[in-house]
Amino acid sequence: MANEMTTANGQPFDRASLESLMRRRMFYTPAFDIYGGVSGLYDYGPPGCALTNNIVDIWRKHFVLKENMLEVDCTMLTPYEVLKTSGHVDKFADWMCKDPKSGEIFRADHLVEEVLEARLKGDKEARGQKVEEGVEDPKKKKKKLKAITAVKLEDAVVQEYEEVLAKIDNYNGDELGELIKKYNIKNPATGNDLLPPVAFNLMFQTSIGPSSNLPGYLRPETAQGQFLNFAKLLDFNQQSMPFASASIGKSFRNEISPRAGLLRVREFLMAEIEHFVDPEGGKKHPHFDEVKDVELELLNREVQLAGKTHVETTKISKAVETGLVDNETLGYFLARIQLFLLKIGVDKTKIRFRQHMANEMAHYATDCWDAELFTSYGWIECVGCADRSAYDLTVHMKKTGAPLMVREPRKEPLTIEEFQVDINKKKFGPKFGKDGKKVEAELLALTQDMREKLSLDLKNEGKITVEVPGVGDGKVEVPQEILTIEKRTRVENVREYTPNVIEPSFGIGRIVYALCEHNYWTRAEDEARGVLSFPPTVAPTKVLIVPLSSHTDFKPFVRRLNNKLQDIGISSRVDDSGASIGKRYARNDELGTPLGITIDFQSVKDDTFTLRDRDTTRQVRAPLDDICNAILNLVNGTEQWADVAKRLPAFEGQEVE
Amino acid sequence: MANEMTTANGQPFDRASLESLMRRRMFYTPAFDIYGGVSGLYDYGPPGCALTNNIVDIWRKHFVLKENMLEVDCTMLTPYEVLKTSGHVDKFADWMCKDPKSGEIFRADHLVEEVLEARLKGDKEARGQKVEEGVEDPKKKKKKLKAITAVKLEDAVVQEYEEVLAKIDNYNGDELGELIKKYNIKNPATGNDLLPPVAFNLMFQTSIGPSSNLPGYLRPETAQGQFLNFAKLLDFNQQSMPFASASIGKSFRNEISPRAGLLRVREFLMAEIEHFVDPEGGKKHPHFDEVKDVELELLNREVQLAGKTHVETTKISKAVETGLVDNETLGYFLARIQLFLLKIGVDKTKIRFRQHMANEMAHYATDCWDAELFTSYGWIECVGCADRSAYDLTVHMKKTGAPLMVREPRKEPLTIEEFQVDINKKKFGPKFGKDGKKVEAELLALTQDMREKLSLDLKNEGKITVEVPGVGDGKVEVPQEILTIEKRTRVENVREYTPNVIEPSFGIGRIVYALCEHNYWTRAEDEARGVLSFPPTVAPTKVLIVPLSSHTDFKPFVRRLNNKLQDIGISSRVDDSGASIGKRYARNDELGTPLGITIDFQSVKDDTFTLRDRDTTRQVRAPLDDICNAILNLVNGTEQWADVAKRLPAFEGQEVE
Repeated sequence: MANEMTTANGQPFDRASLESLMRRRMFYTPAFDIYGGVSGLYDYGPPGCALTNNIVDIWRKHFVLKENMLEVDCTMLTPYEVLKTSGHVDKFADWMCKDPKSGEIFRADHLVEEVLEARLKGDKEARGQKVEEGVEDPKKKKKKLKAITAVKLEDAVVQEYEEVLAKIDNYNGDELGELIKKYNIKNPATGNDLLPPVAFNLMFQTSIGPSSNLPGYLRPETAQGQFLNFAKLLDFNQQSMPFASASIGKSFRNEISPRAGLLRVREFLMAEIEHFVDPEGGKKHPHFDEVKDVELELLNREVQLAGKTHVETTKISKAVETGLVDNETLGYFLARIQLFLLKIGVDKTKIRFRQHMANEMAHYATDCWDAELFTSYGWIECVGCADRSAYDLTVHMKKTGAPLMVREPRKEPLTIEEFQVDINKKKFGPKFGKDGKKVEAELLALTQDMREKLSLDLKNEGKITVEVPGVGDGKVEVPQEILTIEKRTRVENVREYTPNVIEPSFGIGRIVYALCEHNYWTRAEDEARGVLSFPPTVAPTKVLIVPLSSHTDFKPFVRRLNNKLQDIGISSRVDDSGASIGKRYARNDELGTPLGITIDFQSVKDDTFTLRDRDTTRQVRAPLDDICNAILNLVNGTEQWADVAKRLPAFEGQEVE
Repeated sequence: MANEMTTANGQPFDRASLESLMRRRMFYTPAFDIYGGVSGLYDYGPPGCALTNNIVDIWRKHFVLKENMLEVDCTMLTPYEVLKTSGHVDKFADWMCKDPKSGEIFRADHLVEEVLEARLKGDKEARGQKVEEGVEDPKKKKKKLKAITAVKLEDAVVQEYEEVLAKIDNYNGDELGELIKKYNIKNPATGNDLLPPVAFNLMFQTSIGPSSNLPGYLRPETAQGQFLNFAKLLDFNQQSMPFASASIGKSFRNEISPRAGLLRVREFLMAEIEHFVDPEGGKKHPHFDEVKDVELELLNREVQLAGKTHVETTKISKAVETGLVDNETLGYFLARIQLFLLKIGVDKTKIRFRQHMANEMAHYATDCWDAELFTSYGWIECVGCADRSAYDLTVHMKKTGAPLMVREPRKEPLTIEEFQVDINKKKFGPKFGKDGKKVEAELLALTQDMREKLSLDLKNEGKITVEVPGVGDGKVEVPQEILTIEKRTRVENVREYTPNVIEPSFGIGRIVYALCEHNYWTRAEDEARGVLSFPPTVAPTKVLIVPLSSHTDFKPFVRRLNNKLQDIGISSRVDDSGASIGKRYARNDELGTPLGITIDFQSVKDDTFTLRDRDTTRQVRAPLDDICNAILNLVNGTEQWADVAKRLPAFEGQEVE
């Protein structure tokens, strides 16, 4: 388990130099930069955009294509009523505290975290311990605190703070308010007292149409569109269960005070799966066997509530058997999530799965595991995998009356023995008059137990007495002439149920950022030479084409190579600038380009080219077709560089600096 | 030129049956349907989503990969100030009229169009002419008018109406108001008078952050993000011009009263290119030669203003030569747009390029050609190709001071002879005191012509007189002791300029819809059997796998086929429902699936399979590897069905109905 962030080749990780690289090479840039920027909004430049597209592409193949998921694309604009029903209008909120004097606004949980962590640091300093730097919490505001003062705390206080921090995600607004009072937390910049936490809804509001009488929001997740279409999707799937829908698109959260770069943004790309499963029969998954031996690092709820962060490596089959992970379908997706993360190049030692604590879960979830990736900001939630039970389908069905449920013929007809209530309408109406409806409703609502008891009364006394509020004195007698209660057998051929939903939900932007941290290192010979070692499938550009110089003899070769690569669908870039070959390769190391082709005077003579591997800087030389073939194999993942280096003759020529 | 819409096999086109198919097969569905829907918002179901993804994929290869464009992904949330500067806050509006009694709101131009067209229809009826049905304008409200009354109009009135309709996009609010008065146009439903047209801004407004002091909008186009990043993109491109950026993403327009299904929506997918080009030297394009012989159907501005719609077929090289299309870069993209549309399966006879009239153009454009596709709604703008000149870069540079320009070393230093103004600051200050700045500014702003004239005055009279509003009586004398105006030579080594922008902008949703109309037909033997003949590259699913029956012997074959196809990246679906083979194929004809594999008892015996072509319903039989190979070639476009049918043995077995 990683405790301090190191680079891909084991050096200490320097976030500032990676971020500088990412901005310099335009992986991303603050949106509206020339207007001063807007916090929490970022644009992706060419390499960031290509990286994201490639990851989305692999995601689509790994999940949608592989499992025949039904991909949909629903609108972001969402009318008020839908999100009122889903619970987001009332519950999709964070707690914020205002400094009434300065007007500054803080996110309450982040403030508590930040202040307690600062005090713990001060305590360590006072005790003469080494203060660890470099691992920071992403939720923490980066705004400079007053310089940490070395104040020793009571041992009991240290322990209390640490326990609070371990379950910081588990407090509600009142509890956060109490912590703020108890620990005497103020605005760190001004020392002012803060108002108690109030809920701030995180949805962006707008108005649809010209008459402004249709309020709406930008969706906070892609899921709702998938739920609303459930009946049509089931139809499309020819009524066959289980099945999954999926959606890739932007969602929006109006964060109170977003910092931490790409990790906390107001507009972000999500890829979400809604897997609909029969709640009966243990939520089995038909392909669970294929992943049963995958090992995951699991951090469960109980460990966290005990104020610990101990993780266990567990085979997913065992985790499901022991009930640590609730069911096969949830387990299947946890394993598939890890396989996806590994496929795109995430560092295996920097993945763990953390279970949510009760208060931390979204209002719709009954269980949730996050895939967290370790970064210089600490452990970051990158994929959530929630069991939403039947929550969403149930609330929308109740609100709209639409049949968001499954009706399936029973393999064996179900025989039910039950007490049935029959009313003799002809006599019943005249007897009760205007109270008839109320009495009837009360009779039909009787439980099986009550019916059994009353059937005996009816037999023994010739009448029963039921409570009907609002009729007479609240007690009504019903004689046996107008009522029968009998045990009978009924046969049910069709079963109706509301499916449960298992939802793996990917924050693509966070994954992209963590991937960059995991793949970043600097060449031993020169710390300023950063490298991003993305796997070829994921790399933004696959090949750099470098003519030795601007000599005109090289130009037709550049054009031919470029066209050839375009024809086979490989993205390449030509760098025919005057810079040295070494400089040009250094630039492309930073862009994560895995392969380079050099055109030199020998190319002009014998039509061979050198192919360079980014990570080892080794080169081979071969004719064009062999080079292209090797590139295709490397990009498709069917060959590794070691294979290519074995097959094709090495080229030992010096790089011309 | 098509005048009435026909299907791919020449039958009369029936929109209702296509729309029913598209909804039934979940190409799209009204968003929030179970909540009653919201007009102008649609969700794409699995086939619509896959079709869109495939088109986007081809777009990316055709434009971004082919021309090394710099793809970026910018935020949709956009602060007020950016869109104020770009002109959208003031000018991105439509004209709406309100019925003050009913509260109903109409889009003014659509209302005029609708009423005049209805009257022309009534006139035709009165004259006993056939009234053409089936071609409707998408901008027209579909709401039922009162039954058309057959009223004959004066010949002159008919001509006037037709002229108004030909240039309906060219009227501003006042002019529309006058037309409404002149032609006595009322609310068609109630007969009420309408208020005069007022501007309604089409952007969705929201507020960013918790303090609601940062108003923002959802972007109306992806372009602004690209412009704001211009300096960084130029840097990324190593200062090399010309180059293009590109972006694919959702944009939003709060349409007044959207109807016409997928053609007028409030949230839509755009793919936009901003090609930055030197305004000097005729806006040449380096690859123009590759497209010079492409022939386009061009409908120019003058023809439309004359109230006509006559189109000429012209080679793009000739159109640029004659100045009909302003420059090579614009011409290059018009040709590339057509090539793209043909590649995805648009009907060549249903494409034309229409030039915008002056008032019709967006506020930023100096010229614009729309690629229009013919559909049952008439000619529909699907791609705009505008010359935005230096408008956007200039306004943002002026507002922010950011250097949105190109600085390039001149090949030959430029020698400039010019009159220079020098001020003797020591004497100038004391003489003019607090007016000094104003006088100086006026002197430095003098044109070369003025400077020449004044240099003579200075020589002849020892002083000059300049107009400086607000200083003394507005005329100021400046003596030669404090002023020199001399002709001198200056050498400029660097050239600075603001690039012009050519912007091809694709409405993907409209293209998807038009493509469906162009590829729809019904089998001659059965009108109810609809087919969507998408090219295999574009088709949502490539292969349907059909076991002859649910016999268990077939199951391992189904699994093997499915896995094999997944491995080679081909999307397939299994239909092992109990329905007849014919029914299963019919369903997939409607989904546009080009290929089908049947597994029958012979497959079990000798491991061969039949491959069926959707359009001809012909089949071949071959071993698995041959079948997969043929599928790959068909999907990549390297083989056509005719080639496959020649290579592989035909299978003449009857389809089991």
